[in-house]
Amino acid sequence: MHTIDWVDGAVELIDQTALPGRLTVLRLDTVEDLVAAIQRLAVRGAPALGVAGALGVALAAYRAGDVAADVRRLETARPTAVNLARGVRRAAAKLPQGADAVLAEALAVRDEEIAASAAMATLGADLLAELCGQRPRLLTHCNTGALAAVVGGTALGAILELHRRDALGGVLASETRPLLQGARLTAWELGRAGVPYRVAVDGAGPFLMARGEVDGVVLGADRICANGDVVNKIGTYAHALGARRAGIPFVVVAPESTVDPETASGAQVEIEDRGAAEVLSYGHSAGEDGPADAVNPAFDVTPYELVTAIVTERRVIRLDRGERV
Amino acid sequence: MHTIDWVDGAVELIDQTALPGRLTVLRLDTVEDLVAAIQRLAVRGAPALGVAGALGVALAAYRAGDVAADVRRLETARPTAVNLARGVRRAAAKLPQGADAVLAEALAVRDEEIAASAAMATLGADLLAELCGQRPRLLTHCNTGALAAVVGGTALGAILELHRRDALGGVLASETRPLLQGARLTAWELGRAGVPYRVAVDGAGPFLMARGEVDGVVLGADRICANGDVVNKIGTYAHALGARRAGIPFVVVAPESTVDPETASGAQVEIEDRGAAEVLSYGHSAGEDGPADAVNPAFDVTPYELVTAIVTERRVIRLDRGERV
Repeated sequence: MHTIDWVDGAVELIDQTALPGRLTVLRLDTVEDLVAAIQRLAVRGAPALGVAGALGVALAAYRAGDVAADVRRLETARPTAVNLARGVRRAAAKLPQGADAVLAEALAVRDEEIAASAAMATLGADLLAELCGQRPRLLTHCNTGALAAVVGGTALGAILELHRRDALGGVLASETRPLLQGARLTAWELGRAGVPYRVAVDGAGPFLMARGEVDGVVLGADRICANGDVVNKIGTYAHALGARRAGIPFVVVAPESTVDPETASGAQVEIEDRGAAEVLSYGHSAGEDGPADAVNPAFDVTPYELVTAIVTERRVIRLDRGERV
Repeated sequence: MHTIDWVDGAVELIDQTALPGRLTVLRLDTVEDLVAAIQRLAVRGAPALGVAGALGVALAAYRAGDVAADVRRLETARPTAVNLARGVRRAAAKLPQGADAVLAEALAVRDEEIAASAAMATLGADLLAELCGQRPRLLTHCNTGALAAVVGGTALGAILELHRRDALGGVLASETRPLLQGARLTAWELGRAGVPYRVAVDGAGPFLMARGEVDGVVLGADRICANGDVVNKIGTYAHALGARRAGIPFVVVAPESTVDPETASGAQVEIEDRGAAEVLSYGHSAGEDGPADAVNPAFDVTPYELVTAIVTERRVIRLDRGERV
């Protein structure tokens, strides 16, 4: 099953907001519906967003409305992951050759992400085995499995490959507030794969590392800047600080489509704030005592000097040895 | 209104599990009910737990059942905060003099915590003004207000004192998973006091510090070890790492009753694990794909070298200048 695909003239995708309770496939045949799905995170994860953007341009090309406006809407649906705008632009470059050419390019984006996932799983597992010792206990954050890509995944793909090799000591899945992509999606994928795991609140990660319960941190990226800064789900930076202090490897697994040489460093990246409601959807102080407010950055920036290595489908970049993106 | 008190022969306390939705006062006249209230966090916060333990011994003394067993049950209801066992032992030392003497000692514990809160508010506000610049924007974690003490509070008391002085730039309240003492209780107290605040997920704190949105971190403690290590709500250590990296002060405000010279360092403290259900109460992968598990340490240890200063009702300990507990 593909997380997102083109099926009989429309985009079909797994509704990630309904998991783990229900496995629902949405069929979207307008750009408006696809943009809405992207914005409410029915589809998410940098590689999957690249595919969604490219397939969205195919939708626009076949519908032949205001295609330029559709392309702009897709490109700017969310600002932080570079893959979305990049997937849109790749497909849009084929518009002069007609809708079939656009679709072919979008499917090429999809197929490249599938191939990248497979290559990252192997390279990532090899590196984790090398850096983290025998049967490492790995902490991951957010969801970087098949649901974040098309099949396979990035960081979680490498973890699952270690499991297939019978070389995995355990997984700690950080729950990933506010939308719980770890507790909902990573837990669901690990459960289906038969991998034992424990969920932990985001604030517990650094302490569990200090207590010696984690041999390495492995997670994905929404954008990798030219200097190696990693933009990823909020909470990543805190885990990087914990890993550094505990002296354990901090490994990022992400496709080349996430590497953005146009952006010098994390300071130049627009960090999406998804609004207070996501954070305050339960538990807050409401009503009579005045409105509660929240700050809700969806991503953070991990400075390159806290990153041990970045694994893509083509290479292992050992930042800890001075190698650069 | 007192968070916890002795009223007409029984313990009355605000049920903190019902806030912010409902303000409910529980009346407890057996040790069993009080222990249950402590264990399900209807009453929590190191100073309040000390008072609860002492008043519990008064309950036991008046009921005159198996008093020794009651004392043991109270003393061990929760392991991490030193105040609980200490409050129990102080009151229990008066058992030979009769129930009235026990109650008098328990009320002395209560009154000392009230006085300590007032003194900490002043000393804490003075120090924050000195260390964090004019109108500092402060991040706090968990709840350290009146609800954690009797009235006043510890770290939140110092924040509220800055507000009264019109010298507060803003408050970031870390939501504090899994039980949301920040989003529920701190937000409720700040709202009632008319202090503007924003809630943030726990994983966002270090990034907001890196982005220059926080001038200092101020929070409480459940136990302060002889070497200055601070045991406090899970997530504290990650915030300390963020503060150190951002070069901003990290200040602990807690009464002398939390200082434990008997415990050499954080490594010797039993960290309560409150079980998987608290973490998995929503959002997890359940059922058919196998049971989900979680690790749920309720506290963590912040090494003394990450702490700028500890403020008690009697003193300011500048750990950053080599002063020791």
